[in-house]
Amino acid sequence: MSLLVIGSLAFDDIETDHGTITDAPGGSALYCAAAASFFSPVILLGVVGDDFPSDELNFLRKRGVDTTNLDIIPGGKTFRWGGRYETDMNKRTTTNLELNVFTGFNPVLASGLEKSEFIFLGNIDPDLQISVLDQAKNARFTGADTIECYIKDKPDRLRSVLKRVDLILINDDEARLITGEHNILTAARSLLKLGPQYAVIKKGEHGSILASADGLFIVPAFPVYTVIDPTGAGDSYAGAMFGYLAKQGEVTPESVRKAVVYGGIVASFTVEDFSLARLKKITNADIEERLAQFRSLTRF
Amino acid sequence: MSLLVIGSLAFDDIETDHGTITDAPGGSALYCAAAASFFSPVILLGVVGDDFPSDELNFLRKRGVDTTNLDIIPGGKTFRWGGRYETDMNKRTTTNLELNVFTGFNPVLASGLEKSEFIFLGNIDPDLQISVLDQAKNARFTGADTIECYIKDKPDRLRSVLKRVDLILINDDEARLITGEHNILTAARSLLKLGPQYAVIKKGEHGSILASADGLFIVPAFPVYTVIDPTGAGDSYAGAMFGYLAKQGEVTPESVRKAVVYGGIVASFTVEDFSLARLKKITNADIEERLAQFRSLTRF
Repeated sequence: MSLLVIGSLAFDDIETDHGTITDAPGGSALYCAAAASFFSPVILLGVVGDDFPSDELNFLRKRGVDTTNLDIIPGGKTFRWGGRYETDMNKRTTTNLELNVFTGFNPVLASGLEKSEFIFLGNIDPDLQISVLDQAKNARFTGADTIECYIKDKPDRLRSVLKRVDLILINDDEARLITGEHNILTAARSLLKLGPQYAVIKKGEHGSILASADGLFIVPAFPVYTVIDPTGAGDSYAGAMFGYLAKQGEVTPESVRKAVVYGGIVASFTVEDFSLARLKKITNADIEERLAQFRSLTRF
Repeated sequence: MSLLVIGSLAFDDIETDHGTITDAPGGSALYCAAAASFFSPVILLGVVGDDFPSDELNFLRKRGVDTTNLDIIPGGKTFRWGGRYETDMNKRTTTNLELNVFTGFNPVLASGLEKSEFIFLGNIDPDLQISVLDQAKNARFTGADTIECYIKDKPDRLRSVLKRVDLILINDDEARLITGEHNILTAARSLLKLGPQYAVIKKGEHGSILASADGLFIVPAFPVYTVIDPTGAGDSYAGAMFGYLAKQGEVTPESVRKAVVYGGIVASFTVEDFSLARLKKITNADIEERLAQFRSLTRF
């Protein structure tokens, strides 16, 4: 089954302790689609300017990502984000934000797409997320990410999203901000009360927590000795999770746990280099090898 | 096999978001001995004033802790520590420190004790830890904890301890401070180069990491919804670990992993109340039940 991915494609300008990079292809939908493509066919819905490198889109196409619904605006400039990470990479500052063509982004599900069953909504304006949910009449399993600015600026719209998606996937600080709960387990439970069947809270190097009516699933992060750039880790996590679930074609407590593990594994590759550099070099065999290592690292 | 535990016994005055407590029996050796007693006989070496509550010592004795080597100084005042925890309980400030009878503490292994095979050295002055190691001619498996002040004030003596113990058990910030490595996995590897066969790094609510020549073991924390007081969590962890290993009577990669899991489980009880209050209420069946829950929470 295909996964429909909606979100941003961007140029990222990034500073970390390990170096800087400018004009790095990024954005939630780019990372999400690339990660999901290891598991299932992907349909990408987004917008870029014609300055966005065709090499990058060709890479996605080769990996089975359908880019026919990607809007390429002639003469348009692609969304740009700049960020600086501290030594503690859980902390970052946005140094630049140019919406450019993203200002006019209004995702319309072309004929056929409204039948999509597995959908992931990357961190875009909750109004756009709701618009997609309105159009997707056949959705069987939907997930969404969000970020601090929407939690603060559009709390009511975000609550509408939470009421309608099956899974919310956010980081620990975002979970605390939405729920007002400091304890991350209590925050996860509170998220469930807002609507979704599943809440996944990402804790970076500390792993993640899946909460649902079936209880908790607690999973450490795959150990990475040198994190070059954490940008896109969460989006890759989401992509791998949803790609895996779309491939399975059904969502069970077991398949969601496995999806969470794959999310962490694929994210562990993403952070080992800038942009999609690492994901471009790996194969499914590398992912399976890391999964086997992970089982061994956590077995007792 | 018995476990020999050396460390502090104290009165703690503690403030957390959940309340305050004064004159709470505490100290590294008290928590360590209480936790270890669920697994093996314990011999406790330490010093208190005669102001230390006999109820507390009777509790230990009932649980199989040999207190005949505990020095009770007539007219002496027990070591006192005061601390305040922030909402993020990984952060705490020492608000008071009165060494009292602890000033003259000089652990001497009485006849017979020099044959102890399993020994845990709680966080006391590295000179005292070395003194115990000098006396313990038959030691088969030794472990030590330490704290920031010894890392900063006695780095050379601490390095001597690291060269001689089999296992070092510290928290993430301490590991970074000793090794100068920010990445916690790199810090764990660097600790091994300083001498011990095993390094256990505790990350509080984020679980812990065991590093050895056999590689890594990564384990999440048992989920605790309400942490009342994290004091003694690390000492309970150490006690459960070493109590379990002493009970097994041999140290293998498998038994150390299992010991680490028990460490986390027992610590998860400790933090659910002040002082030993929670440990006084549980039985081995409670520990085994939480272990079974933990397997279920982490299975995929």
